[in-house]
Amino acid sequence: MFEVVKRLLVGRPLRSARLGETLLPKRLALPVFCSDPISSVAYATEQIVLALAAGGVAALRLTPWVGVAVAALLIVVVTSYRQTCYAYPNGGGAFVVSRDNLGESAALVAASALLVDYVMTVAVSIVSGVVAITSALRSLAPHAVALSVAFVLVLALANLRGTKESGRVFAVPTYGFIGLTLLMFLIGAIRGLGGTLPPAETAAQPLPPTTAFGGIFTLLLLLRAFASGCTALTGVEAISNGVPAFRKPKSRNAALTLSAMGAIAIVMFGGITALAVTLHAHANPDGNPSVISQIAGSVFGAGSPLFYLYQAATAAILVLAANTAFNGFPVLASILGRNRYLPRQLHNRGDRLVFSNGILLLAAAAAALIIGFDANIDKLIQLYILGVFTSFTLSQFGMVKHWHRELATGPDPRQRRRIRRAQATNLVGALVTAVVLVVVFATKIEHGAWLAVAAMIVLFFLMRAINRYYARVSAEVAPDQTPLTLPASVHAVVLISRLHKPALRALAFAKATRPDVLEALTLATDDEETRELRRTWEQHEITVPLKVLEAPYRDLLRPLLDYIRRLRRDQPRAVIAVYIPEYVTTRWWQTLLHNQSALRIKARLLFTPGVIVINVPYQLGVASQGWLGNDQLRTTR
Amino acid sequence: MFEVVKRLLVGRPLRSARLGETLLPKRLALPVFCSDPISSVAYATEQIVLALAAGGVAALRLTPWVGVAVAALLIVVVTSYRQTCYAYPNGGGAFVVSRDNLGESAALVAASALLVDYVMTVAVSIVSGVVAITSALRSLAPHAVALSVAFVLVLALANLRGTKESGRVFAVPTYGFIGLTLLMFLIGAIRGLGGTLPPAETAAQPLPPTTAFGGIFTLLLLLRAFASGCTALTGVEAISNGVPAFRKPKSRNAALTLSAMGAIAIVMFGGITALAVTLHAHANPDGNPSVISQIAGSVFGAGSPLFYLYQAATAAILVLAANTAFNGFPVLASILGRNRYLPRQLHNRGDRLVFSNGILLLAAAAAALIIGFDANIDKLIQLYILGVFTSFTLSQFGMVKHWHRELATGPDPRQRRRIRRAQATNLVGALVTAVVLVVVFATKIEHGAWLAVAAMIVLFFLMRAINRYYARVSAEVAPDQTPLTLPASVHAVVLISRLHKPALRALAFAKATRPDVLEALTLATDDEETRELRRTWEQHEITVPLKVLEAPYRDLLRPLLDYIRRLRRDQPRAVIAVYIPEYVTTRWWQTLLHNQSALRIKARLLFTPGVIVINVPYQLGVASQGWLGNDQLRTTR
Repeated sequence: MFEVVKRLLVGRPLRSARLGETLLPKRLALPVFCSDPISSVAYATEQIVLALAAGGVAALRLTPWVGVAVAALLIVVVTSYRQTCYAYPNGGGAFVVSRDNLGESAALVAASALLVDYVMTVAVSIVSGVVAITSALRSLAPHAVALSVAFVLVLALANLRGTKESGRVFAVPTYGFIGLTLLMFLIGAIRGLGGTLPPAETAAQPLPPTTAFGGIFTLLLLLRAFASGCTALTGVEAISNGVPAFRKPKSRNAALTLSAMGAIAIVMFGGITALAVTLHAHANPDGNPSVISQIAGSVFGAGSPLFYLYQAATAAILVLAANTAFNGFPVLASILGRNRYLPRQLHNRGDRLVFSNGILLLAAAAAALIIGFDANIDKLIQLYILGVFTSFTLSQFGMVKHWHRELATGPDPRQRRRIRRAQATNLVGALVTAVVLVVVFATKIEHGAWLAVAAMIVLFFLMRAINRYYARVSAEVAPDQTPLTLPASVHAVVLISRLHKPALRALAFAKATRPDVLEALTLATDDEETRELRRTWEQHEITVPLKVLEAPYRDLLRPLLDYIRRLRRDQPRAVIAVYIPEYVTTRWWQTLLHNQSALRIKARLLFTPGVIVINVPYQLGVASQGWLGNDQLRTTR
Repeated sequence: MFEVVKRLLVGRPLRSARLGETLLPKRLALPVFCSDPISSVAYATEQIVLALAAGGVAALRLTPWVGVAVAALLIVVVTSYRQTCYAYPNGGGAFVVSRDNLGESAALVAASALLVDYVMTVAVSIVSGVVAITSALRSLAPHAVALSVAFVLVLALANLRGTKESGRVFAVPTYGFIGLTLLMFLIGAIRGLGGTLPPAETAAQPLPPTTAFGGIFTLLLLLRAFASGCTALTGVEAISNGVPAFRKPKSRNAALTLSAMGAIAIVMFGGITALAVTLHAHANPDGNPSVISQIAGSVFGAGSPLFYLYQAATAAILVLAANTAFNGFPVLASILGRNRYLPRQLHNRGDRLVFSNGILLLAAAAAALIIGFDANIDKLIQLYILGVFTSFTLSQFGMVKHWHRELATGPDPRQRRRIRRAQATNLVGALVTAVVLVVVFATKIEHGAWLAVAAMIVLFFLMRAINRYYARVSAEVAPDQTPLTLPASVHAVVLISRLHKPALRALAFAKATRPDVLEALTLATDDEETRELRRTWEQHEITVPLKVLEAPYRDLLRPLLDYIRRLRRDQPRAVIAVYIPEYVTTRWWQTLLHNQSALRIKARLLFTPGVIVINVPYQLGVASQGWLGNDQLRTTR
């Protein structure tokens, strides 16, 4: 029944050999990996304007310069990550780069930062999209949490169906948003040149008076605005995580997609910032109306069909930004699982050749976060830039070290120059992102960023503990050089309650294994039943000796375990094979009618060293059981 | 942990040999078995008065005659059941009598009637007691359901600790109630003779005018009042169910207790009825104030300490009436379990030598009923007289037939006279209770009695179905006369994922059983892992052949099941022994870190005919595993 539902939802399973077909062409890779950065640029300008507004009109005039700085950093980070795509074609992003160059602890910091970031991305993106929807349709506002969780499930399902499937589904909204934004620029340019462009809604809003302008205050304000604007960079590293998902040549395609994404992001960011400055759009702390909707209102005309279409596309791209996480997280979790920092189950590909366990884990964590924070965007949004910039910084420092080692292998002068250039790029990027990290941490710590830091710390120690555990188990069960040693002797015990077909089958099989000692064991809970058993035993002339254990407290386990312990004490070199005949029930109500003691005995015996448990099942209601009762069998006593 | 709590609540387990110590002396048997009848008489008068009031003052004058009729029936039924105690000293009451004399269907009707009745008794008694408490302490009224369920649990716990323990605990309230009632009679007589006895509270209440008095109306009214008054008889059969719980001589002690109970019941019933008539007490439909509390108010003085003490004792005896059911139901369920009409687990005695499963089942059913009816006394109270009188009727008709068969064995004339006398008693009782059954059914059917009937019908068919199922299974697994046949050949398959200690242990044990064919099997989910396995296999020079199954869909079960099916097709006479090495985890979090595929494979294989599953456990973290790695072992390849 579960199988039927699963097939309906997810589709037919794919053979492992078809993994090549699931690889992404560049045009589908963009919606899959780049929806987060593209949606971020829609809001980066707003964050800059909001931060600068605290300094009054004069500070707002610096908006273009801050924008330029953010765009420059974006170029640096994109160039930096292009190197990573070539240097590490098996994916893994910041984790692999850090592990190879900076050591295990740095790698785990990067990994936990990314994991936390991905979960937050899903939660924040979807809640932002739902907020956009509920501000348009007020009646849905009380159901924000349910709506958000529903979107999480929809995204998870689309990704469970397959990477290319999710790419096709999300291509339309993604390219649609890009297209509409470019259209907005075009129309805005035309109308602006023609002079028919109205100012933004909030243009007339009063600002706080320009405070003491100069020195340290300005610098801090600029840093804060710059750090807020860096939200435009979130999601850039996802492609470097997922290089293996690209078609061949994987590194080249990944790098090209990254460049394309960078170009699109800069164009959109630049255009939005330019329009925001031109239209004197101000940002409200509660995000309503958003800067981008004000621009659309001015350019398309407030209330026009294009305006509403753009609002819808904005909401869609916000929700889809989560899709980047749905492709980054499972791949990273799979790599961590393969390296034994997370449970190995995350490493397996599911029916559709995606990392199903990772997708489900992400969906569960994000849903828990949304429910826990009651879909409160203000609280959530402060948390997730930290993870991104931690991984940026570690990744780029790792690349610096990587090039350092490459130089040591003695390449020719032309290569040396190229390597040095790459190394310089990475170093600049690393330093700038490190500064941004500090600024972000300092400015956002009182808003709740400590929660993200706490989660990262917990994950760090958890992953390290898991790795140590797996290493300990591996060491414990590693085979040594001794050849295959057999047990000194086998002492077979067959548990009997009544002499029926299942018991006879267990006796027969125990005999067939030719143990050194064979005996049947029964527990005397009911004197009448024990006498009956002895009588039937003799009547069937069974040569296996029947031993009766006293069960003075009607308890089955204790006398059995005591007996086994005595056996082990007397013969420590023997292995005790316990044969348990049991009914196999096919219907649920049968379990109510048959004693479940076999199950309890089995479970308890599994914990007893030196004991092996043999289940001899008897399928009730199955006509032909083959052996036992069949005249083609050997007959012996 | 569960064990510790269980020990604290229930006490230390008792050896089976101590069963004799748990038998009841007569003085403790009274609180255990007779609390229901004794509490019923407290309310029987009220029911008679309530029913007669519909006919006006003239009808109320017939109250003493109805009371005499009820008392007479009580004597007949008590005498009748004394016979049953002697004739059936192994207990079982109506079920055993019906089965022996009237056939299986009648016995099942009696059994289902009694089972339903016992569950209702617990629910009704406890809810009545809680109603008495909440009418005194209004603040507890919203918590009636919780309070009722709490009382159910307390009674269940007291009974789980042992029959004698529950008897001791409940002796004080039971004898206290009896004593206070007799005291009430004494004081009532003294004050009445002295003329200082005030009339009852409701004496001045107006009654409906005397309607057309005569003929069919009067007859119906009298029958209705008589049927309502028969609530005094509920619980009389419980002693005949539980004869085995008495000390020797069991039948005599049980019969004596029954007589004592009958005498006490008649005295109390007579006294209460006499006082009710004298004080002109009227009954209100909602039960407030109850007739017995009005009598206590007049005799002891409203608001006096004795009055409140009597109210408390009344509430206590109401709650304790459930204790009769807690001793009747488990014994009956045990007998039904032994005869395979109910799951056999109900037949086993628990740690304290009581039928724990029956006690728990009763508590669960009663609690469910209380919660389902929201502790609504009106709805519940209509339901449970049906079951009692069904079992009365069947039991007494059964005894009539029993004596008929005794007569056929040709006893001497003196015995014949005695038997005929007994037979006549039973016949009269049977006919009267049959009439009462019809009247009760007709008068209460619209009040919801259909629910009790429906429950009885469901139980009837359920018990018959269970019996048929057990019979079918027994026939299926009954051993035939063929001697112990061994399988034609044993084909051993050892499931390997990696070559570690657990896998080596499984291989070694499989070798030790000397099968006809031995091979190791692995599933190729990861090419790299499969290559590694082959390499290690050759490195360790293991002579067991390693077979690699393709797993194109990464699914472990299907390729394995297909392979096993092929094996069975090629060698239908072989048994396939699958050896599964597995980690045994001691901590809960370990299960998250290790693949649970072993469990799924095992479960699925149990359903495959011709396959035997051998668990080769490896206890993680246990230092000395004995065999394997120990130099005292035989070495072979």
